[in-house]
Amino acid sequence: MSSSVSPLAPKKFVTLPPVDGVRIATAEAGIKYKGRTDLLVMAFDEGTSVAGVLTRSKCPSAPVDFCRENLAGGKGRILVVNSGNANAFTGKKGKTATAATAKAAAAAAGCGENEVYLASTGVIGEPLDAGKFSHLLESLAADASPDRWADAGKAIMTTDTYPKYATAKVALGDVEVTINGIAKGAGMIAPDMATMLSFVATDAPIAAPVLKDLLTRGANRSFNAVTVDSDTSTSDTLLIFATGAAARRGAPSITALDDPQLVPFKRALNRLLKDLALQVVRDGEGARKEIEISVAGAKSSRSAKRIALSIANSPLVKTAVAGEDANWGRVVMAVGKAGEPAERDLLSISFGDHRVAHEGERDPSYSEEAVSEYMKGDRIRIGVELGIGQGKATVWTCDLTKEYVAINGDYRS
Amino acid sequence: MSSSVSPLAPKKFVTLPPVDGVRIATAEAGIKYKGRTDLLVMAFDEGTSVAGVLTRSKCPSAPVDFCRENLAGGKGRILVVNSGNANAFTGKKGKTATAATAKAAAAAAGCGENEVYLASTGVIGEPLDAGKFSHLLESLAADASPDRWADAGKAIMTTDTYPKYATAKVALGDVEVTINGIAKGAGMIAPDMATMLSFVATDAPIAAPVLKDLLTRGANRSFNAVTVDSDTSTSDTLLIFATGAAARRGAPSITALDDPQLVPFKRALNRLLKDLALQVVRDGEGARKEIEISVAGAKSSRSAKRIALSIANSPLVKTAVAGEDANWGRVVMAVGKAGEPAERDLLSISFGDHRVAHEGERDPSYSEEAVSEYMKGDRIRIGVELGIGQGKATVWTCDLTKEYVAINGDYRS
Repeated sequence: MSSSVSPLAPKKFVTLPPVDGVRIATAEAGIKYKGRTDLLVMAFDEGTSVAGVLTRSKCPSAPVDFCRENLAGGKGRILVVNSGNANAFTGKKGKTATAATAKAAAAAAGCGENEVYLASTGVIGEPLDAGKFSHLLESLAADASPDRWADAGKAIMTTDTYPKYATAKVALGDVEVTINGIAKGAGMIAPDMATMLSFVATDAPIAAPVLKDLLTRGANRSFNAVTVDSDTSTSDTLLIFATGAAARRGAPSITALDDPQLVPFKRALNRLLKDLALQVVRDGEGARKEIEISVAGAKSSRSAKRIALSIANSPLVKTAVAGEDANWGRVVMAVGKAGEPAERDLLSISFGDHRVAHEGERDPSYSEEAVSEYMKGDRIRIGVELGIGQGKATVWTCDLTKEYVAINGDYRS
Repeated sequence: MSSSVSPLAPKKFVTLPPVDGVRIATAEAGIKYKGRTDLLVMAFDEGTSVAGVLTRSKCPSAPVDFCRENLAGGKGRILVVNSGNANAFTGKKGKTATAATAKAAAAAAGCGENEVYLASTGVIGEPLDAGKFSHLLESLAADASPDRWADAGKAIMTTDTYPKYATAKVALGDVEVTINGIAKGAGMIAPDMATMLSFVATDAPIAAPVLKDLLTRGANRSFNAVTVDSDTSTSDTLLIFATGAAARRGAPSITALDDPQLVPFKRALNRLLKDLALQVVRDGEGARKEIEISVAGAKSSRSAKRIALSIANSPLVKTAVAGEDANWGRVVMAVGKAGEPAERDLLSISFGDHRVAHEGERDPSYSEEAVSEYMKGDRIRIGVELGIGQGKATVWTCDLTKEYVAINGDYRS
């Protein structure tokens, strides 16, 4: 594991204000780590709506299965997250652990087990002993307070080199509401220390079905548009809780996605999700550069996103960026292998504002020197224009360095 | 570029015998390299059948486009291959180069341009100057001789650390026929020095449509079942030429795929293709270990192959093998992300003969010590049993090492 902080870490961390109706507590349960917090409890007022986006893995963790079932109800009173053990690929024991945790959490929050949400991150394949922390939940729920968002971000870290926070204030009707979010990476997945997790909370009164649509759309342009190494976690979990507490201050209750009062909130939520997702990418294992890949002129947006992800997941593109080499030939290759409609002789490719290839050939006017200078930066933009349609998409990734191999190679010998 | 020979190189190279009806010549055309051959001409007797399997890239090279057109006719008299320049993403200039080469090659062989086959490998995006070698084709075709297979294998190398040869003698009816093959890698693709190429020739009299079916099926279990880094070349080309010269010695002419006389030939061809494909993998950039991944019990063979490739292309699985770590959690992850039917709680995973996970949990009986010892070898077998159907597939890859990043990162700075 790398112990140094990513060079792409934020220069300054934001301070998260309280969110009406949300109380937080953390503890050192000693699940795996020593001398740091590894347990997070977030308690929500009665009437809190919840929505989620979960991993598409066919081998999901036990907590993912548990959340998927409860999300159908759309109500949430308590979230319990542990780090140090992912409770993934743990068979029947995994389900026993989620059941025991849910029972204790429901008792602590005074709610039904169908209003409990669980997430686990850490070692895969090791049974999770819920007995290590289920007895702590009652006192944590009782002692929870609204001002502990910084603690929350830290308790869920695994191989992350920095905690990830984002916050926004936005008008809903005439009332200002708050959105807070935390996230952890550090690879798209590193199954020894698995899982991308993110939790967002707001005091806005938004019904669960609307929340679900908002989150799904926002995730498609943020958490589902980032990749570190193409390896999808068994445990990826993004949840949003809306306590509705702002209704007491006069905020309107939102029950329809097309409610015009929702527009600023939607924009703010999308920005916040993107901010968190980029913090995950910038803490990607071994990352030295953030890469933004924009594909335009594709047959459809879906097609554009597939091509963009094909570029983002290409080891040869990622190693080229690590080597500060504007190797557009590898971008052509990655467009070609995506299997999506593309016309070689209509293709244009740019690095930053430098167009390096045009209409299927090297752009004769580009300056090798200027592009080389551009490639030295730590935020690299790759643009691809396919010239066959209107579809477009943007995704983000990081470079592939020897450090990535070192972190994941584990060189036991 | 790495200059040391792969530790997985053959200890001893086979000597390829002549194939009746095939003559070979090579030259130093100075296309890019100095002091080595970079041009190969293979001339075939009249009546030679040809079949091919080409890259599925949507951005293929100009020679791939050229071959695709001529393969419809099924007749071949001359093959011209250059290394040093891939003639890929070269726009109209690329087509001009293939046309000029084809014209000179047809004149040299005394055949139509529709009986010419071309392949180029090397730098992408640089226009190929056919003038550097088209004038050499006439004398090369005239001087070509049957005993130069070793030279042929060397002339097509780019970043390969060793030439790749395979040969077989097999009965067709009562007559012994020969199959020879050469190949080059060195990544599945490394677009600076792009392209997987392989050329096979036999004196067996086999009609082009049968040859096409044989090659396609053989490729699916060999060249289309190997991956170094998931990056598909713009230029991958596999061609087989059947001169039919063995008919003069009494070999039967094969015009149907289900001809029982074809069975031994088919087996020998499949073995030869697999041999060549594995030589490509074993020369994968930075490779220190060959990895064989067998998936069984899938819903279909197609599904099994997708899951196997998902494992083979996972950077986390490949780095774990590099680190000699039997990290079955990463195999679970890669099964899960493939998007194919899988039941977590039915899954079994083994490394070599050591079953490490069974029915969705760690196998309690496995010896960590024995598995660790196994992982030190240079041929690692990963077995996955899905337990839901009869589909199975095997694919091959290599590990992902810091050397791969170093070779492709190019660290200009």
